[in-house]
Amino acid sequence: MTHSGQSELAAANHKAVRELVTLERLREFFTPQSIAMVGASENSGWATALVGAAATMGFTGRIVPVHPRVDTAFGRKVIRSLRDLDEPVDTTFILVGQGAVESVLDDMAAAGIRNGVVVTAGYREMGAPGRAAEESMVAKAAAHGILLLGPNCLGFFNVHSKSPAYGVPIAPPLIPGPVGVALQSGALALIAQTIAKSQGVGLSLVATMGNEPMIDITDAIDYMVEDENTKVICLFLEEVTDRATFARAAQRADAAGKPIVALKVGATELGQAAAMAHTGSATGNDAVADAAFRQLNIIRVKGMEEMFATAGVLAYNTFPKGRVGRRLGVVTGSGGGCDIISDSADPEGLEIPEFTQKSVDAIIPLLPDFANVRNPLDVTGFAMASRSGETLNAMDKTLDIVIEDPNIDLVLYAGINAPPTAPLPDNPLAQGFEPRLAWVAERMKTARIPVVPISMMAVDQGAWGMEKLLQHGIYVAPGLNGSVAAVGRALRWLDARGSLNLTPEVPAATRQVTEKGAWSEMRSRQLLEEAGVPIVPGELVNSADEAAAAATRLGFPVVLKIQSEQITHKSDIGGVALRLNNEADVRTAFEKVYAAGKAVQGAVIDGVLVAPMRSGGLELLVGITKDPTFGPVMAVGMGGVWVEIMQDTSLRVLPVDAAEVKKAFNELKAAPLLKGARGSLPVDLDALAAAVTKLGDVAVSLGDSLGALEVNPLWVNGSQIEALDVLVITE
Amino acid sequence: MTHSGQSELAAANHKAVRELVTLERLREFFTPQSIAMVGASENSGWATALVGAAATMGFTGRIVPVHPRVDTAFGRKVIRSLRDLDEPVDTTFILVGQGAVESVLDDMAAAGIRNGVVVTAGYREMGAPGRAAEESMVAKAAAHGILLLGPNCLGFFNVHSKSPAYGVPIAPPLIPGPVGVALQSGALALIAQTIAKSQGVGLSLVATMGNEPMIDITDAIDYMVEDENTKVICLFLEEVTDRATFARAAQRADAAGKPIVALKVGATELGQAAAMAHTGSATGNDAVADAAFRQLNIIRVKGMEEMFATAGVLAYNTFPKGRVGRRLGVVTGSGGGCDIISDSADPEGLEIPEFTQKSVDAIIPLLPDFANVRNPLDVTGFAMASRSGETLNAMDKTLDIVIEDPNIDLVLYAGINAPPTAPLPDNPLAQGFEPRLAWVAERMKTARIPVVPISMMAVDQGAWGMEKLLQHGIYVAPGLNGSVAAVGRALRWLDARGSLNLTPEVPAATRQVTEKGAWSEMRSRQLLEEAGVPIVPGELVNSADEAAAAATRLGFPVVLKIQSEQITHKSDIGGVALRLNNEADVRTAFEKVYAAGKAVQGAVIDGVLVAPMRSGGLELLVGITKDPTFGPVMAVGMGGVWVEIMQDTSLRVLPVDAAEVKKAFNELKAAPLLKGARGSLPVDLDALAAAVTKLGDVAVSLGDSLGALEVNPLWVNGSQIEALDVLVITE
Repeated sequence: MTHSGQSELAAANHKAVRELVTLERLREFFTPQSIAMVGASENSGWATALVGAAATMGFTGRIVPVHPRVDTAFGRKVIRSLRDLDEPVDTTFILVGQGAVESVLDDMAAAGIRNGVVVTAGYREMGAPGRAAEESMVAKAAAHGILLLGPNCLGFFNVHSKSPAYGVPIAPPLIPGPVGVALQSGALALIAQTIAKSQGVGLSLVATMGNEPMIDITDAIDYMVEDENTKVICLFLEEVTDRATFARAAQRADAAGKPIVALKVGATELGQAAAMAHTGSATGNDAVADAAFRQLNIIRVKGMEEMFATAGVLAYNTFPKGRVGRRLGVVTGSGGGCDIISDSADPEGLEIPEFTQKSVDAIIPLLPDFANVRNPLDVTGFAMASRSGETLNAMDKTLDIVIEDPNIDLVLYAGINAPPTAPLPDNPLAQGFEPRLAWVAERMKTARIPVVPISMMAVDQGAWGMEKLLQHGIYVAPGLNGSVAAVGRALRWLDARGSLNLTPEVPAATRQVTEKGAWSEMRSRQLLEEAGVPIVPGELVNSADEAAAAATRLGFPVVLKIQSEQITHKSDIGGVALRLNNEADVRTAFEKVYAAGKAVQGAVIDGVLVAPMRSGGLELLVGITKDPTFGPVMAVGMGGVWVEIMQDTSLRVLPVDAAEVKKAFNELKAAPLLKGARGSLPVDLDALAAAVTKLGDVAVSLGDSLGALEVNPLWVNGSQIEALDVLVITE
Repeated sequence: MTHSGQSELAAANHKAVRELVTLERLREFFTPQSIAMVGASENSGWATALVGAAATMGFTGRIVPVHPRVDTAFGRKVIRSLRDLDEPVDTTFILVGQGAVESVLDDMAAAGIRNGVVVTAGYREMGAPGRAAEESMVAKAAAHGILLLGPNCLGFFNVHSKSPAYGVPIAPPLIPGPVGVALQSGALALIAQTIAKSQGVGLSLVATMGNEPMIDITDAIDYMVEDENTKVICLFLEEVTDRATFARAAQRADAAGKPIVALKVGATELGQAAAMAHTGSATGNDAVADAAFRQLNIIRVKGMEEMFATAGVLAYNTFPKGRVGRRLGVVTGSGGGCDIISDSADPEGLEIPEFTQKSVDAIIPLLPDFANVRNPLDVTGFAMASRSGETLNAMDKTLDIVIEDPNIDLVLYAGINAPPTAPLPDNPLAQGFEPRLAWVAERMKTARIPVVPISMMAVDQGAWGMEKLLQHGIYVAPGLNGSVAAVGRALRWLDARGSLNLTPEVPAATRQVTEKGAWSEMRSRQLLEEAGVPIVPGELVNSADEAAAAATRLGFPVVLKIQSEQITHKSDIGGVALRLNNEADVRTAFEKVYAAGKAVQGAVIDGVLVAPMRSGGLELLVGITKDPTFGPVMAVGMGGVWVEIMQDTSLRVLPVDAAEVKKAFNELKAAPLLKGARGSLPVDLDALAAAVTKLGDVAVSLGDSLGALEVNPLWVNGSQIEALDVLVITE
């Protein structure tokens, strides 16, 4: 098969697969009630794990081992082929060697089976020959109307439907719950399940994606958006293959009010290299992914532990639609704990204001004399013990006062310390634990403001306590700094909910481009002028006389710049003259600049550009390039050292509107300079955003031809805005 | 008692206490083998906890309850007073009301008891009256030769000597080990012990410090430095009261090769406010503490979990003396895990280089065909199973190859997955666990380079596995990103070991200062000139003629600056004229500047300073202020927006030498500008460091009189260095 033939097959496959994948099919796929393990003997670790997982999950459906040379396995009769089934199973778990997979697909079709998980590896991840085998397999599956997860995956398990199509042991207990997980890494599934369990986060679905030629990670997202058991979607991402489908899935999640929490690897060059080796596919530029994720309101995390802490806070607590204020009330039993929370709150943009005097007055009688009644509040150890016969302790009563404090938008409540084992009958404190939990759960659901239970330490919940917490639907966020960070992430997600600013598809090109490579400055200026981007006036001249005349028309001081498509770094060759204050200087400079251009071998000189020299104001930079995954992406920043040394830029995936451009400028560390620091005029941000939005639109209008479009500097003086230098590169 | 009287008592107390506190006394204090609980009935939670802690720890010494109105408690006979003891106990645990504490001290003296823990609260933390009661108590204790921990503390427990002078329940198991903890917060002790246990970090001592009028946290450090059972010292700090004793303790720890890991709260304004409320003492400026800690080679962490992860890595692994390279070898069983490690390594300055071809060739035969043999290495799940009859699996054999790879300086080894419970007899894999552990422990001790076991997830070790790990002295650092960060911190500590750069005491003043407030510029210039700090030439003039003559002597262009002690912001009142290119301009400017000065009410005009105007080069800033705890502290940075907008400064507590000043400049984000970015001359760093060191010495020479000393700008052009403007403020 030729390379182009393979690409045609891939394209045909893609089309066929997309027609096959419907929400209905996904729902069917992820909730099987009977499973055939093809290639399973008791020597297979995967099959052994599946059978064990089924027992752990309480799966009551059929598990049928299929093997050509084995009679019994796992206490079950082994059939020789899927064709021997009396009635079709819901899915197959395929463990056979690569050479046998396609015949298994034929058997499935003959047996009326529509779904399969391919554990078998050696496909796309191994390079070209594997890629061909993968396309061939997919073509056959699609032709049969069969939907596959994998190859090169470890399957999935659905906790609510109790479906164990999964080749990794599950250590009990497996907690059903609202958090779904899809992973572009098989081995991390075990880690994900273990961390979720340790934190008391219940799971809905855990899916390992494998090579994704049929069901891909956006399909898994789509399924979880529709799945009523899933409230928060966790992703481990090594690659985002397609902007449009990914963005659409993210939009549907946001519209459904289901946060996506993603651990996207490839944050550094090292990370990218590792990702490339381990998935066989390139990982896009990470800063671009960062920008795209923010525009899609996807919460990005750096570790698996914080992924589940963030998901737990979002899934188990009650938040209103829309923005929640940043004023925390903090109720703990430790002054040192208060200190750590305070230190952690500031970087998250969270405040810890004073309580009202009314709250303070109401709390004082509840606590011992030596308690210092202020926010953050240490109720002291005494207030954590319930009085005999009372369900609530003084800390609980304090919580109720803080909930009603008008200075407070959200309460962090460190009042739940679940005993690891069932309390002894003679322990009144521990005996009161369950009624207190019921009370806290009620507060979490109905209080005026969100009440978020947190733990002072990130350690495992004990079995007994966790069971009780889960019965009441309570998640205790782990650790002081960890839980504050998780709350910060949750609030930022709430802020952005419903205002996604990344369109799934880049609009089609509206300009025909025939040039390739760097454009001349005059041609670049023309492009921007046509689009209505403000640009410094300029005239192309070809003699010292013309230069002097143009300078007089434009007004002194002026700059001269050599114009040649072959000369991209004009300054380096002496092709630029600055601060020319009179005609004589302009004439001399023209000769010098022109000669410098002529001296460059092979350069065709179009002339010399004369333009007014601007001073004062600020010099900004707007650069637009093309990311392999997300397409056109714009960086804005202050020019000069701000970009070169401080790397102080904001990125946005295009197209964006003026409001988003303003946000991008306001994110800069140098943003105070825009407000008129150090005596310069405050920048007219509306005018700036309008101009930069047009620049973005121009870049988008070039479609796939866009290589780069850079304005450096973009000069701004109050509401005066001019592109002083422009470079366009097309491909 | 008058306020000054109280201060005298405090000073006398301090002197008496310091004479009492010797290493021998501390050793005796922290290892009691018999304890009297004074004020203990079975209603006391503290006493109940102590008795429980004793049982958990296996304390076999006497516990004697003392109470005036109770006959038996905790199955023990209660005595009425310490005077009724037949023989003295090693320490008392004092729970009585504040009014009775001093008579307990008398009883202790009468009974021959030298040590006590005061749990009783209501002292210094409650303000002035409590402070008086505290000083009175301390005076009595000191007079009796009694050493106290507290008041307002929860005591301590020493795991190796099995001494439970501690009023908080200890949840078993309590793991003996190499990590000591001292906390300026009582409630965090429980949290510390719980987190340590969950991570499998063994403890030596846990001490809660209380108000510290006698034994303070530096004494606890000193004890742990001497204690052979402690290898790493963990601190929770709300305040550092005294630079000298703290720095000396840190120096002794460093000299002994015992890292200090500190969670210092008060990182933000919020944190400082909370710390003030909760300890009754101000917390020093946090950025200064950050600098001081780095100069003292104290590892600073943000959370309790990372405190123990860092301590565990340092305490349980074998590191050579001196710097360890940054080239990691990574051996895991997960490609996704490799990605997360790669992403986490870069911010820590850790590299993951290629293995040598020799290593790759040696590893390939050990792993399945589909494994991708590169660093970071995913050995795949198959390589983690031992073959029947063999102790080591393929992953272990791989480790041995990586240890010998000359490209690698340290190995992260994710090969230890401790089963939570004892493996079943028919599980050969789990049965091989203990021999494998012994092998790994041997590698950790004897390998050419450090081998650091890490876990893929930060979850509790199960009881059985943890016991086995501890038996072999193995600590498995928790979580992928968490363990990489802990290794990064450990390596930075190793780098700095033995090269502390903060002297315990600020040298005494060598200059007598009579001025108070802002000095005139001429007087400030004189101070710097005397000290040999290079300063721009300048002449003080009092007429336009004198100004013109001075300008001609100094060379054009010049600047004029009004000189008056009453005018500190010269520019704001029009008292500065820049870029004067000829005599005429100088004359005009003189009149303008002089008139502007005269117009300021109450200003006595000393004249006008004429100085050459410098251009080109770089404008730096050196500012020195005084921190309440650490004394003189210097900030260096680039001037202008770099300081104002980017807050790009490096801090150093003074005095420092030129090498440390160079380091400070090299830490700036703007450091590339010093190397001659953007066409400017490279800065002569040796000359710069020499000048700035002199500036620091001048500030130090002012002693307590120093208010602030600021040079802004310090102009640098290659090796030309001049202070262009100087401000000195004394108190």
